[in-house]
Amino acid sequence: MSVDSLNKIREYCRQYGFIFPGSEIYDGFANTWDFGPVGVELKNNIKKAWWKRFVQEDMNTYGVDAGILMNPRVWEASGHVDSFSDPKMDCKKCKQRFRADNMIEEHSAGKVAAEGMTNEEMEGYIRDNHIVCPNCGGFDWSEIKQFKLMFETSRGTVEGAKDTVYLRPETCQGEYVNFANVQRTARAKVPFAIAQIGKSFRNEITPGNFLFRTIEFEQMELQKFCHEKDGMTFFDDYKKRAMDFVADLGLDREKLRYHDHDKLAHYAKAACDIQYKFPIGWEELNGIHHRGTWDLSRHSEFSGKKLEYQDPETNEKYTPNVIEYSIGADRLTLAILCEAYNEEKVLEDDTREVMHFNPVIAPYKVAVLPLAKKYHSEKAIEVYHKLSKCFMTTYDESGSIGKRYRRSDAIGTPWCITVDNETINNGTVTVRDRDTMEQITLKIDEVVDYVQKRIDF
Amino acid sequence: MSVDSLNKIREYCRQYGFIFPGSEIYDGFANTWDFGPVGVELKNNIKKAWWKRFVQEDMNTYGVDAGILMNPRVWEASGHVDSFSDPKMDCKKCKQRFRADNMIEEHSAGKVAAEGMTNEEMEGYIRDNHIVCPNCGGFDWSEIKQFKLMFETSRGTVEGAKDTVYLRPETCQGEYVNFANVQRTARAKVPFAIAQIGKSFRNEITPGNFLFRTIEFEQMELQKFCHEKDGMTFFDDYKKRAMDFVADLGLDREKLRYHDHDKLAHYAKAACDIQYKFPIGWEELNGIHHRGTWDLSRHSEFSGKKLEYQDPETNEKYTPNVIEYSIGADRLTLAILCEAYNEEKVLEDDTREVMHFNPVIAPYKVAVLPLAKKYHSEKAIEVYHKLSKCFMTTYDESGSIGKRYRRSDAIGTPWCITVDNETINNGTVTVRDRDTMEQITLKIDEVVDYVQKRIDF
Repeated sequence: MSVDSLNKIREYCRQYGFIFPGSEIYDGFANTWDFGPVGVELKNNIKKAWWKRFVQEDMNTYGVDAGILMNPRVWEASGHVDSFSDPKMDCKKCKQRFRADNMIEEHSAGKVAAEGMTNEEMEGYIRDNHIVCPNCGGFDWSEIKQFKLMFETSRGTVEGAKDTVYLRPETCQGEYVNFANVQRTARAKVPFAIAQIGKSFRNEITPGNFLFRTIEFEQMELQKFCHEKDGMTFFDDYKKRAMDFVADLGLDREKLRYHDHDKLAHYAKAACDIQYKFPIGWEELNGIHHRGTWDLSRHSEFSGKKLEYQDPETNEKYTPNVIEYSIGADRLTLAILCEAYNEEKVLEDDTREVMHFNPVIAPYKVAVLPLAKKYHSEKAIEVYHKLSKCFMTTYDESGSIGKRYRRSDAIGTPWCITVDNETINNGTVTVRDRDTMEQITLKIDEVVDYVQKRIDF
Repeated sequence: MSVDSLNKIREYCRQYGFIFPGSEIYDGFANTWDFGPVGVELKNNIKKAWWKRFVQEDMNTYGVDAGILMNPRVWEASGHVDSFSDPKMDCKKCKQRFRADNMIEEHSAGKVAAEGMTNEEMEGYIRDNHIVCPNCGGFDWSEIKQFKLMFETSRGTVEGAKDTVYLRPETCQGEYVNFANVQRTARAKVPFAIAQIGKSFRNEITPGNFLFRTIEFEQMELQKFCHEKDGMTFFDDYKKRAMDFVADLGLDREKLRYHDHDKLAHYAKAACDIQYKFPIGWEELNGIHHRGTWDLSRHSEFSGKKLEYQDPETNEKYTPNVIEYSIGADRLTLAILCEAYNEEKVLEDDTREVMHFNPVIAPYKVAVLPLAKKYHSEKAIEVYHKLSKCFMTTYDESGSIGKRYRRSDAIGTPWCITVDNETINNGTVTVRDRDTMEQITLKIDEVVDYVQKRIDF
């Protein structure tokens, strides 16, 4: 099972209504993607499953939904204004812009780590190794400049003021600045977490790996606020919970691994990624970071507001440590698409393409198919309306049943409900399983229960 | 029932964890709001209810989730680049910026419609009527300039190029540009609709009416593509469905009314708002617009791609008409907050503040309360874990039961479950109703069913 190239899954997604290139009729807009009718359900189901597990079922976690546009001081405190940038250079011949560090790492097949190099050292390396423009083959580079990764815009309510505002490059600051608000209103006791799902933006030059890295992306993440002595316990706890979550959604544990960071930010105490074996290799799927008191301390310093907690039992007053657990909703969607895909032999001379989604996150739970449009569509539409009250349901009356099964398989619908004379005479339908292709007979009234039991997460 | 001022509900929301000022520790960021733990659940429930009714249960509606950042040509085609702006002027004394048209309308108490005036006419009116700066009282105005309402940013992948990109000011263009993609992949027959929930941004100077008008806001909207002959039928259909939806969520029909537009855009065939009686008066809650073939024609013209439909039965080829139904998720949340609030006498000398949310959208469905922390919290936590598998549940063990009831009422939790000796001995709990304050006894296992039946939408 699973797909062998991102191009293949990208084309598949375009063909079956999962994901289209952004603004496609205008020849697209680089590294943006629009979720189509099938994809939007898949991604929403992934987000709902995450929220259920990490917010709804966790007594000590509270959700927020903070603004994409925040007071610019937030990004001074976080350090993004000063240092969130990539080293870039322009090909003077074709005018394309590239990341110097990536080019060095690719040229050296990962042997040279450009991360620690100065701009001058990178320029020297590119010159000495005669690295040419990947676009036009030219060798006429501008000097390397640090290019800001935050999208900038302007609020413009005061005359003359530049009034620069940023699109948030990460959602977590929305939790930090609301630490005291949430603690106060939820009457939360440390340790507790604040969770958020929302969009972030980075003005990156990306290699175009479909959903893997995009300029606009959605994060699902939480910040656990705890006493220093409990930091590593929660770090380990979220490592495990994060792994269980993606495995429970359907990713193969053989294709998942922990990857500890070699280098840590100066304030960090520990950092670990979970990697998934994408068609492009082992890559980060999510991160768990022990960030110490850095975030709350910085915001306290820049805002002048105390962001401390006083333990009601010991009376100890302290700045909580933060354990961050963050996963990209788009990247996880990509992993799940890659994992779910399969091309299978079904008969001697026939194959099918099928998405083996965990039914919990399958875009549509059931497809309702009248055996013969002429005789059964009225009854089938009645069944559709009954089922669509409970979960996402498709209705398909055109073409042979075999063809309709294939279409349902292609978008990963776990169950096909065929409506025929038996339905009209006895109130029973045939339920065909996507994975086993076996069929059983159920009363119409039993279908909802049958499905509900199997989509419990 | 309902609140009498936006300031009051704003303070209430801040106090109980519904909504906080954006970036509050940095003294906020004008006209941005962060949804707190209670508010995020309320808003998510409203969005889910909308999606269920208009997408899940409608056989001919397909969802999308398009990018906030789109190809800039989209906004040329839509007309926003040329004409989406407000007339603004600066007070030279205090440097604040104001909308000239609003100032004239306020000064004349709505008697003068500034909409049709030229910049020069507005300047003349302000001079002749000596309208002073609302901020500093000065009378030293700059000339009026058209101020773009789209936030601009820059992609910056090509050297030298200005590469202006916009934050979408409306979500519907994401449906128009994907018309052909959705039609093809869903094998949809006209009439069908494409629906979307997502954020939009407008660089407006607003009067600060809490959630009513914000620079970042979330839309829930759909575009019905139909044959010209069916346009008015669907227009009327969505007028009715839109009204039923907000009434079913809990808005009083007495405070809802249709409001036909006096003036129509040159391409539009009909336009009607639904207004709600907010504490600031009758204001638009959502809009239904018959947009003719304008949108698809423009995108066809600008992209060079045919956006037509061929009827498979009649073979007629045509550009579909569009009926737009659009409602602001934040504005609807505000209306629901205003409507739900009540201050009530509960005993001779006691009052309570309570949010009478429809249980479908109540942030938390149940609160689990151990009668005595010492004796009942272990059992109560067990009950919490059982219930929180099914719906959002709070747990509260501190203070008297009466105080805990008040806290649950304040955030609109429909049912309080008290765990006491009876629970330990007989497995029964007391279920207290938020609205009637009556109590019944149920077996623990019956609670899930009891609640589920009452949150069906």
